[in-house]
Amino acid sequence: MGIYQEIDGFFNPESIAVIGASATPGKIGYAVLKNLLEFYEAGGKLYPINPTRDEILGLKCYKSILNVPGSVDMAVIVVRSKMVPQIIDQCGKKGVKNIVIISGGFKELGGKFRDLEAEALEVARKYGIRIIGPNCIGVYDPRTKVDTFFQPKERMLRPKPGNVAFLTQSGTYGIILLEWSAMDELGISKFVSYGNKMDVDEADILMYLKDEPYTEVVGIYLEGLGDGRKFFQAAREFTKKKPLIILRGGWSEAARRAALSHTGFLGGKGRIYEAAFKQAGVIIARTLEELYDMVKALARQKYAKGPRVAMISNGAGPMVQAVDAVSVEGLKLAELESSTKEELRKNLSPFTIVENPVDLTGSATPEDYKVAMDILLDDPNVDMLFVFFVHQNAPMDKSIIDVMREINKKARDLGKTVLAGAAGGPYTQSLNKEMEKAGIPTYPIPERLVRAAKALYLWGKNVSGES
Amino acid sequence: MGIYQEIDGFFNPESIAVIGASATPGKIGYAVLKNLLEFYEAGGKLYPINPTRDEILGLKCYKSILNVPGSVDMAVIVVRSKMVPQIIDQCGKKGVKNIVIISGGFKELGGKFRDLEAEALEVARKYGIRIIGPNCIGVYDPRTKVDTFFQPKERMLRPKPGNVAFLTQSGTYGIILLEWSAMDELGISKFVSYGNKMDVDEADILMYLKDEPYTEVVGIYLEGLGDGRKFFQAAREFTKKKPLIILRGGWSEAARRAALSHTGFLGGKGRIYEAAFKQAGVIIARTLEELYDMVKALARQKYAKGPRVAMISNGAGPMVQAVDAVSVEGLKLAELESSTKEELRKNLSPFTIVENPVDLTGSATPEDYKVAMDILLDDPNVDMLFVFFVHQNAPMDKSIIDVMREINKKARDLGKTVLAGAAGGPYTQSLNKEMEKAGIPTYPIPERLVRAAKALYLWGKNVSGES
Repeated sequence: MGIYQEIDGFFNPESIAVIGASATPGKIGYAVLKNLLEFYEAGGKLYPINPTRDEILGLKCYKSILNVPGSVDMAVIVVRSKMVPQIIDQCGKKGVKNIVIISGGFKELGGKFRDLEAEALEVARKYGIRIIGPNCIGVYDPRTKVDTFFQPKERMLRPKPGNVAFLTQSGTYGIILLEWSAMDELGISKFVSYGNKMDVDEADILMYLKDEPYTEVVGIYLEGLGDGRKFFQAAREFTKKKPLIILRGGWSEAARRAALSHTGFLGGKGRIYEAAFKQAGVIIARTLEELYDMVKALARQKYAKGPRVAMISNGAGPMVQAVDAVSVEGLKLAELESSTKEELRKNLSPFTIVENPVDLTGSATPEDYKVAMDILLDDPNVDMLFVFFVHQNAPMDKSIIDVMREINKKARDLGKTVLAGAAGGPYTQSLNKEMEKAGIPTYPIPERLVRAAKALYLWGKNVSGES
Repeated sequence: MGIYQEIDGFFNPESIAVIGASATPGKIGYAVLKNLLEFYEAGGKLYPINPTRDEILGLKCYKSILNVPGSVDMAVIVVRSKMVPQIIDQCGKKGVKNIVIISGGFKELGGKFRDLEAEALEVARKYGIRIIGPNCIGVYDPRTKVDTFFQPKERMLRPKPGNVAFLTQSGTYGIILLEWSAMDELGISKFVSYGNKMDVDEADILMYLKDEPYTEVVGIYLEGLGDGRKFFQAAREFTKKKPLIILRGGWSEAARRAALSHTGFLGGKGRIYEAAFKQAGVIIARTLEELYDMVKALARQKYAKGPRVAMISNGAGPMVQAVDAVSVEGLKLAELESSTKEELRKNLSPFTIVENPVDLTGSATPEDYKVAMDILLDDPNVDMLFVFFVHQNAPMDKSIIDVMREINKKARDLGKTVLAGAAGGPYTQSLNKEMEKAGIPTYPIPERLVRAAKALYLWGKNVSGES
C-alpha cells in the first residue's frame, strides 16, 4: 500500500473504535467518543471499547476490540501508555490499519518510557499499522466528520470544509488555529496533531497532502525534526505544487530543552534550519498568528504577481505603519501613473490625499472607496491593493461588503491581489467576517497584513519560477 | 490658568456646543451630537449650532454660538476648515475656553491650507482658548460622558471608567484601542485623539495626566514630534510618577512622507528617537497590539520586581515559544528550588513534567493548576508566573476563574506578577474576559504575553530606581 492510501486511511475510515471510551463527562475517553457521534450519525460505524461498560452514549460497548463484530478500520487509543503495546497487538489481530494514540506518557517523559514507544512501534510494524501520535489530539476532517479531539464542541469551534491543511506537533496550537479558522470562515481540508510522531511524521503527511485534491495550502507548527533529510525532500517536492508555511518553536537553547519534554524532540538550531527551509521553498512564519495569517492569505488570494502595493483608507494611521512594514519586508509602494492621480483627483473630494497611500479621510463613503479602488486597480504599476477600513465611522455602511466583492472580482480578473485591514469590536468583527466570506483576507493590524502579503509575494515568485 | 486646569476643561465642561451639528444620520455633525446625548442626560448642557435648523435630536438648535443663552465651556467644531477661524472668534466672544476641531482640511493637505491653521491659532490665543485637533476624533471621558466621536455607539464600543489614558495622533488607532479595552473590560481614565495638534500636544496632556488622579498608565501612538525638547522634558517628568508606553509610526522614509500627509508631521528618524525615548524612561512598543498589551499589563499588574519567570500549562506548545521569547527579551527562566520540584512531584500526577516550564498535560484539572501554582509562587526564585490554558480541554472547567482569582491575590501579597495566555473561539474568549475582570492580563499568543511582561519588568526597574 502506498503512502497516499496509508495516510488517507486516517481521514476516510468506515469504522472507528475508541479504546478507553469512558461514560464519565469530563474524561478524555468520553469527550473523544462524543465528538465522533457526528461521524456515526453520518453513517460511520463507531465502537466504544471499555471492559466495564455495556453501553456508552447510546452505543453498544465492547470489552475488547476483538469482540467487535465485523471489521474496524481505525482505532483511537486513550488508555494509559503502559497498556498501549498490547492494545496495538489486539488492533493488529483485528485488521486495524490506522491508529491515533491520544494518550501521553511516552518519550516526552524522558528515558523511563522511551522503550514503550519502540515496543509499540515494533508491534505496529508487524501488522502494517500506521500510527499518529502519541501525546496529541489526533485528526480532524470536516468532510468525513472524523474528529478525534478531546475538546468538547461547545468549547471548541470546528471549521467548515475548505482548502487548508494544518499539521502541528502541539495540540494546543492546533486547537487555536482551528478556532481562528472557524471564526474567519476559513475552511479546512485536513488537520493532524501528531505529538511525539512515533511513526507518521510531517514528511509522510506532506507526501499525502501534495496529491490530496482538497488541500491547496499547508501550515505546520514544528518543534523538532526527526529525520531531517526525509523532511526536506518531502518539503521540496511539496512546494513544487503547493505553498507550505512553517512556524518553528524551540530554537532557543532553553526552549530546546522545553521542547524535549513536550514532544520528546530537540528543537532545531535557528539559522541552519532557516536556510534549509528556504531552500526547500518553505515560507517561514515567526509567530502562531503569522502562520495563520499567511495561510489564510494563500488560501484566499493564491499569490501576488509582484511586490508593488497601493494602499487606501478612510483613516490614515494604519497606512503610516503599513508603509513602514512594506519597507521592512521588501515589498514596494507602487508609483502611480500620473493619469491615475488625475482620475482620483477628478473623481474624489478635494480633501482626499491623492498619493499612494490614498487617504479618503473620515468623511469617505463606500461609494468613494469604490471609485478610488477601481482607478487604483487599473494602474499597471499596482500588483496588490491593501484596503484599510474604519467601519466605525458614521459615513460608512454595510454596502462596503458588496463593493469589496466587486473589487475582488475585478482584481482577480486582472491577476491582482486584495487584502484588507480593520479592527475593533463586534460591529467591525462582523464586517470582517463578511469580508472573509467574500474571499478577502482581513487583518487587525497593518504589520500582520503586510507579512501575509509578503507570503503571497514569495509564493508568486515560486509560481512564476522566479525564485 | 495652569496647564492642569486648561486641559482638564476638555474633560469636565458643564456645557458643550456642537458647531456644525446636522440632522442627517450618517453625517459627522449628526453622529457627534448624538454621542453627546449621554453627557446631556447626565446633566450637562448641550447646544447644537446650525443656522438652518430649529431643533436636532430633540434639542433646541441655535444659528450661532452667540445666540446660546448662558455660558458655553467647550465647543466641538465639525464645519469646513475655511470657516474655522471665524467660528473660533465667535467662541472666544462667547467665553469658550476649550475647543475640539474634528474637521480636516488643514496642514495635512500641504501648503495650501497651512495658513488656515496659523490663523485659527492666532484667534484662539487672543482669547486664551486651548484647542485639540484639527483632523481628529477628539476626547472621551467615561466618567463625565464627554464623547466627541463621530463613530456611532452601535458601531464602536465605549470602555468603562478605569486607570488607563490613551493619546493618539491617529483617530483610527484610538478607536481600535478603545474597542479592545471595552472587550477586555479594561477601564479608561481619559482619551485624546489630537490629529494635527495645532495647539495642545502630547507634552501638554502628559503634564496634565501626571497629576490627574484616575490615570495610572498612559499609552501614546505618535507619528511626529513638533517640539521635541518640550516633549522629552514632559516625558521625563511623567515617567518619574507613572509608566508611559509609546508606539511610533512613520519612521521609514516612505512612511515619513505618508505621515506628513496624514497629520502634517514628519515622522521622526528611527534610532535617534529610540535612544531619546529610552532615556526619558519611555517603554517602546513596536505594534498597536503591543502598545495595547503593555498598557493592559501595567494597568492590571503594576510592575514586576524581577525578570525570573515560572511557566505552567496544560498544553506545552505555547510554553516552548514563550521560552524562546523570554530568551530574546532578556527575561529569565527561574531556577526552581529543589524543594519546589519535590513538592510538585509529590502533589501532582506522575505524567506531569516537573521542570520549569511545568507541563500539567492535557489531563489537568483546575485543581491541578491550583496545587502547582501555589507551590511555584512560594519559590523565592520566581518573580513572575506565566499561566497558559487550553480551556477547551475536557478536564478543565470554569472553576479555573476562582482558582486564578485566589492565585492572583496570593501573588499580589507576595509582590509577584501573574499573566495568562489562552486563545480560541467564543468559549475561551469568555473565560479570557473573566480572567481580565479578575485582574489578570491575558494574551492570545506567547510572544505577546512575554513582551507585555517585559514592560512590567522595565517599569519595575524604574520603580526600584534600578534603571
